[in-house]
Amino acid sequence: MTGQGSPQTGNNLDPWYHHYAERAAGLRASEVRALFAVASRPEVVSLAGGMPFVAALPPDLVINAMGRVMREQGPTALQYGSGQGVPALREQILEVMALEGIHAHADDVVVTTGSQHALELVSKLFLDPGDVVLSEGPSYVTAMVIFKSYQAEVDHVPMDEHGLIPDALREHIAGVKAEGKTIKFLYTIPNFHNPAGVTLSWARRIEILEICRRNDILVLEDNPYGLLYFDQPAPDAMRSLEQDGVVYLGTFSKTLAPGFRVGWALAPHAIREKLVLANEAAVLSPSSFSQLVISEYLSSADWKGQINTFRGVYHERKKALLSALDEYLPELTWTNPNGGFYVWVTLPDRLDSKAMLPRAVKELVAYTPGTAFFADGDGRQNMRLSFCYPTPEHIRIGIRRLATVIRDELDLLDTFAGTGSLNPHRERSRFSSPPPDIS
Amino acid sequence: MTGQGSPQTGNNLDPWYHHYAERAAGLRASEVRALFAVASRPEVVSLAGGMPFVAALPPDLVINAMGRVMREQGPTALQYGSGQGVPALREQILEVMALEGIHAHADDVVVTTGSQHALELVSKLFLDPGDVVLSEGPSYVTAMVIFKSYQAEVDHVPMDEHGLIPDALREHIAGVKAEGKTIKFLYTIPNFHNPAGVTLSWARRIEILEICRRNDILVLEDNPYGLLYFDQPAPDAMRSLEQDGVVYLGTFSKTLAPGFRVGWALAPHAIREKLVLANEAAVLSPSSFSQLVISEYLSSADWKGQINTFRGVYHERKKALLSALDEYLPELTWTNPNGGFYVWVTLPDRLDSKAMLPRAVKELVAYTPGTAFFADGDGRQNMRLSFCYPTPEHIRIGIRRLATVIRDELDLLDTFAGTGSLNPHRERSRFSSPPPDIS
Repeated sequence: MTGQGSPQTGNNLDPWYHHYAERAAGLRASEVRALFAVASRPEVVSLAGGMPFVAALPPDLVINAMGRVMREQGPTALQYGSGQGVPALREQILEVMALEGIHAHADDVVVTTGSQHALELVSKLFLDPGDVVLSEGPSYVTAMVIFKSYQAEVDHVPMDEHGLIPDALREHIAGVKAEGKTIKFLYTIPNFHNPAGVTLSWARRIEILEICRRNDILVLEDNPYGLLYFDQPAPDAMRSLEQDGVVYLGTFSKTLAPGFRVGWALAPHAIREKLVLANEAAVLSPSSFSQLVISEYLSSADWKGQINTFRGVYHERKKALLSALDEYLPELTWTNPNGGFYVWVTLPDRLDSKAMLPRAVKELVAYTPGTAFFADGDGRQNMRLSFCYPTPEHIRIGIRRLATVIRDELDLLDTFAGTGSLNPHRERSRFSSPPPDIS
Repeated sequence: MTGQGSPQTGNNLDPWYHHYAERAAGLRASEVRALFAVASRPEVVSLAGGMPFVAALPPDLVINAMGRVMREQGPTALQYGSGQGVPALREQILEVMALEGIHAHADDVVVTTGSQHALELVSKLFLDPGDVVLSEGPSYVTAMVIFKSYQAEVDHVPMDEHGLIPDALREHIAGVKAEGKTIKFLYTIPNFHNPAGVTLSWARRIEILEICRRNDILVLEDNPYGLLYFDQPAPDAMRSLEQDGVVYLGTFSKTLAPGFRVGWALAPHAIREKLVLANEAAVLSPSSFSQLVISEYLSSADWKGQINTFRGVYHERKKALLSALDEYLPELTWTNPNGGFYVWVTLPDRLDSKAMLPRAVKELVAYTPGTAFFADGDGRQNMRLSFCYPTPEHIRIGIRRLATVIRDELDLLDTFAGTGSLNPHRERSRFSSPPPDIS
């Protein structure tokens, strides 16, 4: 302990500055987090956040489930429960996963406080300081926050429109090993990737599992969006192909509502045992009330029909976003997701999405700069546009505003660079517009 | 990574055995956890668990609150929220804490998934491997599980009927420093201690805060039971005396219901900022739904009257437990708690509470062996008896069964030892029967 005996020492006006664990240095506010405050102002069209459109869920479906739970199982709903989760709900989770080709046993399911907490628990179980996590580049912001909070390094493996590139994965594995570092797992979002919007092809799922098996690398398959496809389902889950080497994460946050904070991990048996212990240490048990309400909802409501409703809402919004991009910003390139919440946009290379953001917010439109999704500062030429929350009309207004911001920005650059060019430079992206291969 | 390239290596039939983080070795099933399975059999009188008696909460109070939340704030309740928690609830938490003399600002409150998760987050922020946490001996089981999961050592400071002993605290601090180790915080449960049942006197609160201030040691004040006093309130919280050096943990699990998993931390400003980041990394946001239901309950229901109801229930049960001990087991000694859920019993020194447990369960009574509450194997002569959940009648039946078990055990020892004594040895305990000083 530094400064022991002199409580006034410390930096940043924090007397406990020298007392934090080393890992606490990795905890910093994400760029997305700062954006939430901005995006909450009603006059801003936010294409930044990832909030599901819960208003598409009829409240009565939830109110009825709550009433039945309280009348029929009140004391159980109000009490502590098992650290692994309610058995009936774990059985129902098997039915949800079966839609993506997964066959499993309820004993290998652990219910968590959103799938975010499953990510945290797996990271706590596996990551020592200096370990490496492989992930797509770009990758999910708050997963990387967790990995760094356990002092692990994130090594980004490139993707294309078919998802993670197997040859690149091989190269990165060899590179990390050559540095003498330990790879603890591959973190991947195969379906409707956040933020890239692309989907890993079936052939690549097989190939990547084979690469990981040969290299003794655990796969952490995060699948929040899989059931929210548009034209046709995504390929079956990687977990449908391999059970000993995959920890699969699922959630009700996108197919029902995030306010309950209920997700799950499906894990190989020995890992599952440790996950339950870690879950108990962290929260004693996940919320009995939330679990029983969801279990009742799954028993009594047309939950598959409700997922279809969500699919229709998001599909319509994606089409609105892409048609607005076509109309107002044809000089950019973007991915065309077949599900989920996100489009990944590539800007002309003279633009910096992070630097441009304050000007966009001034024009009342928000997005997430690409830099938020890389551990290494990459992504300045990209932005993530979320179509999940705003209405199609608002999406169109937002893109029109964004077009103004981008034109002004390019004009400004032209003026100062003295190039005289009035036509924005058309850039090639790793993510081109044809839809991902979802065969 | 050990065994890279050969997925079949490993121990315990777990192919990932060599992949876990070092800290995962500290995650083991607690003795209390194993007991939950036993205690759930209906024919067993369980004096083991710490489940609040939620049946004393009228279901309509909760059902009404839920209905109003869904009708008036449905989309907010179903959505992600702030990582710090719902602002209105944080204001109401100030009113709850004011009952124990705490004056604070809602900006310094972080809502967590039960106060257990606040403990986990504080530990993640502060504990490096090899750090020392000071705590009472005995101490709360699942706090120690967390500390060990971050590879910290627990150093137990002795207590007496007035709580933690200041001179012993000084000695332990000096001892740990002499070993060159770093003390990160003092973890303490000042009110109606789990498992000891004693309460820290007002004079000692002042003295212990002064010792910690001088030694630059953060105090983690865990207060789940403070409002559940019997004859008179406990002294004001330690946090009422000192704000810069105390992280205070509170919960609705005992004053309302644990099934919602809502607790909180009140922390010095800089620590609070880091706690919010850690909370976001772990769960994105605590359950909006649970928070809004509790906020509505606090606004519309007579929550102080409900706490009085709980106090009456637990007081009656404590009296039932103590009168049964007086009648059936006068040869033992025990603490006389003025609130909370637990009595700490000292057995004759020839008995081993852990070894005796299977025989007790065979006689259909369960308790928690004292060893569960020490990091170092101490506590064989003790047991924790919980009076929170069973009815007074069942408590009486349970103690009668326990008396049979203890008599049989002593007879057996006498027979094999050949001492011929038929009268069990009366032991002195550190925890004698006079009620703790709560002035």
